[in-house]
Amino acid sequence: MIYLDNSATTRPYEEVLSSFLTVSQEFFGNPSSLHQLGEKASSLLEKSREQAASILEVDREEILFTSGGTESNNLAIKGIARANRHRGNHIITTAVEHPSVYNAVLQLKDEGFDITILPVDRNGMIDTEYLKNALTQKTILVSIMHVNNEVGTVQPIKEAGAIIKEYSRAFFHVDHIQGFGKVPLNIRQAKIDLLSLSAHKFHGLKGTGLLFIKKGLLLREELAGGDQEAAKRSGTENVAGIVSMAKAMRMTVEQAHRIPALSALRQQLIKTLTSHKKVTLVSPMENGAPHIICVSVPGLRGEVIVQALQKESIYLSTTSACSSKKQTISRTIEAMACPSPTGKGSVRISFSLSTTAKEIEMLMEAWNRTILPLMEVIKSS
Amino acid sequence: MIYLDNSATTRPYEEVLSSFLTVSQEFFGNPSSLHQLGEKASSLLEKSREQAASILEVDREEILFTSGGTESNNLAIKGIARANRHRGNHIITTAVEHPSVYNAVLQLKDEGFDITILPVDRNGMIDTEYLKNALTQKTILVSIMHVNNEVGTVQPIKEAGAIIKEYSRAFFHVDHIQGFGKVPLNIRQAKIDLLSLSAHKFHGLKGTGLLFIKKGLLLREELAGGDQEAAKRSGTENVAGIVSMAKAMRMTVEQAHRIPALSALRQQLIKTLTSHKKVTLVSPMENGAPHIICVSVPGLRGEVIVQALQKESIYLSTTSACSSKKQTISRTIEAMACPSPTGKGSVRISFSLSTTAKEIEMLMEAWNRTILPLMEVIKSS
Ligand SMILES: Cc1ncc(COP(=O)(O)O)c(C=O)c1O
Ligand SMILES: Cc1ncc(COP(=O)(O)O)c(C=O)c1O
Repeated sequence: MIYLDNSATTRPYEEVLSSFLTVSQEFFGNPSSLHQLGEKASSLLEKSREQAASILEVDREEILFTSGGTESNNLAIKGIARANRHRGNHIITTAVEHPSVYNAVLQLKDEGFDITILPVDRNGMIDTEYLKNALTQKTILVSIMHVNNEVGTVQPIKEAGAIIKEYSRAFFHVDHIQGFGKVPLNIRQAKIDLLSLSAHKFHGLKGTGLLFIKKGLLLREELAGGDQEAAKRSGTENVAGIVSMAKAMRMTVEQAHRIPALSALRQQLIKTLTSHKKVTLVSPMENGAPHIICVSVPGLRGEVIVQALQKESIYLSTTSACSSKKQTISRTIEAMACPSPTGKGSVRISFSLSTTAKEIEMLMEAWNRTILPLMEVIKSS
Repeated sequence: MIYLDNSATTRPYEEVLSSFLTVSQEFFGNPSSLHQLGEKASSLLEKSREQAASILEVDREEILFTSGGTESNNLAIKGIARANRHRGNHIITTAVEHPSVYNAVLQLKDEGFDITILPVDRNGMIDTEYLKNALTQKTILVSIMHVNNEVGTVQPIKEAGAIIKEYSRAFFHVDHIQGFGKVPLNIRQAKIDLLSLSAHKFHGLKGTGLLFIKKGLLLREELAGGDQEAAKRSGTENVAGIVSMAKAMRMTVEQAHRIPALSALRQQLIKTLTSHKKVTLVSPMENGAPHIICVSVPGLRGEVIVQALQKESIYLSTTSACSSKKQTISRTIEAMACPSPTGKGSVRISFSLSTTAKEIEMLMEAWNRTILPLMEVIKSS
């Protein structure tokens, strides 16, 4: 099996699973319980928080554990907006955000917030001049993703952060869910106030995520309850999941040396695929994330390519996983103003840090064997 | 080790953990992905939904998976309130709810909803006459827990459901998190519209929960995003956690024959403990849930009892886990109008379905050995 759908989800590391197992069996206590079993669970939880903080180069009190990327994004956006309404009611985001940002912002629009959606260019990039002009005295939040999940565009986060802090009092949220471990980002340097991660995108477990939230920020608790996580996120903590997320983070950063190899593989694959004139590159040619390639074969549906390759035990997606069942053209690709046939024919190939040159070679062989003949059929029709 | 803090959390069943492991390793695909790995994950997810629905005797489309009890309660309450505001803005709950209900309702109060909090009697019971009188044309939601997590009071859910449906158009939410597997409850017969479960309370995994939501109900999605879970709860599904929750549900209901034994153990333990005149029973004597006993030794702090017993490898809690670090008297015990010294001295002993007579015997021996001498000290002071 060649798994190239790592932006949808990854296979958990064995070590991640064994941590999960050990904690679930031996340290199953409720971290809020006063007895030793509770204390052990609580100390594991805090150790994980320290590990996560140290990897992200922030303070431990700035790490909040959640049930995944969607919750992190919703909490960051709604939690900040609802707590800071007295400061202003304007929110800025981009046209290419993941639905867990985009739809959360739309819900706030229904609640009376003013929303600005920044457009993107043909590479999926925002223009920081637009951002600068969109900022007002009423802007309380700007949410921009680091790496786009469908095409791999890397946004100018550091530049955006500098502009936001120079020209407004707004808080800056970054969806770093696709970027973590693949495209370095320094939270402090980029002046980020909130940042979301999701463990299953880096070989951790589904249902675990994290939100960095800068000290001192006012956030409304979206899950009210027993006031766990410093009264910012209630609910009995998934200690085993959290420990295994910290483990996955560490293992991921330890593999950072693989990034240049991925970039090279990406360049090579793009070159080979687009050497055929019917294949269009949807991803940005330059400055794309090293692990995501979106190409299109106008006239061939994305599903057809996915099905043909899976017969060869190669797994990839039509754009993002969560929009793949909807059969519409992705909002991201539409925002990039690609012609409609391009959108319909697009597929996404996404690497993990352990994707090998051999696997990409096999993908190309399978592509030539099964997709090229289909492309011939388009020609004759 | 004798673990008697099962209302805080339970030890996961071995079978639950092995299901989790298998699914995480072999079926790690994103259920939204179009390829076989996604389809396999998706079909496991739907099979779990069917299993859960069949155990609860409801339809599969009525089951929604969440990240735990706190999320289920928050989603039920805020999701219904925010989606049905046009029908009315009045909500009824009780003084003894878990904070994930109580505080969610208080957040809605801040948003302008009218709230009625039903009082309870010395046994922690609501009065259904009060409920009837509190219902108005504007009531859109009534939230009543089935089994109280601190003292084990079982509320008259079926009677409440009948009253709510006869005298109002309100939806009925039940927090069944402590009741599942221990105190039977028929969703249809009790005319319940929404019901919350949390897997770690019945030997499933932390971070997994479920919300029953009756077909046709309008619910606002609180986690906006990729529209998973029929657009009622976004976020990549924790498939392994969900499969293992369904497994835990099945294993739990298969042990229902243990309930009478637990009730007998409870009666016996209450009798022995309260045979000493300094021990007060906080739980209701009759009609309490079979697995929760709250007693108090006025003059001795709950923490002191917890610490003394843990030296004997016996684990129990001062009231609920999540309020145990706050050092205040629990809202529930206060609402029951127990005298203050009673509240401060209370401890909760909570059984699992596999708690044995031998374990309770050992608890009593330890109690006599370590707590009785402490009680003597109170006398002399
Ligand atoms: C960029 C981005 N943001 C948010 C999410 C949502 O994360 P999760 O699936 O953990 O809810 C995803 C993946 O689904 C993503 O790719
Ligand atoms: C009655 C009750 N409701 C809700 C909850 C919250 O569930 P969870 O811990 O899964 O968030 C609990 C336990 O903590 C509980 O006992």
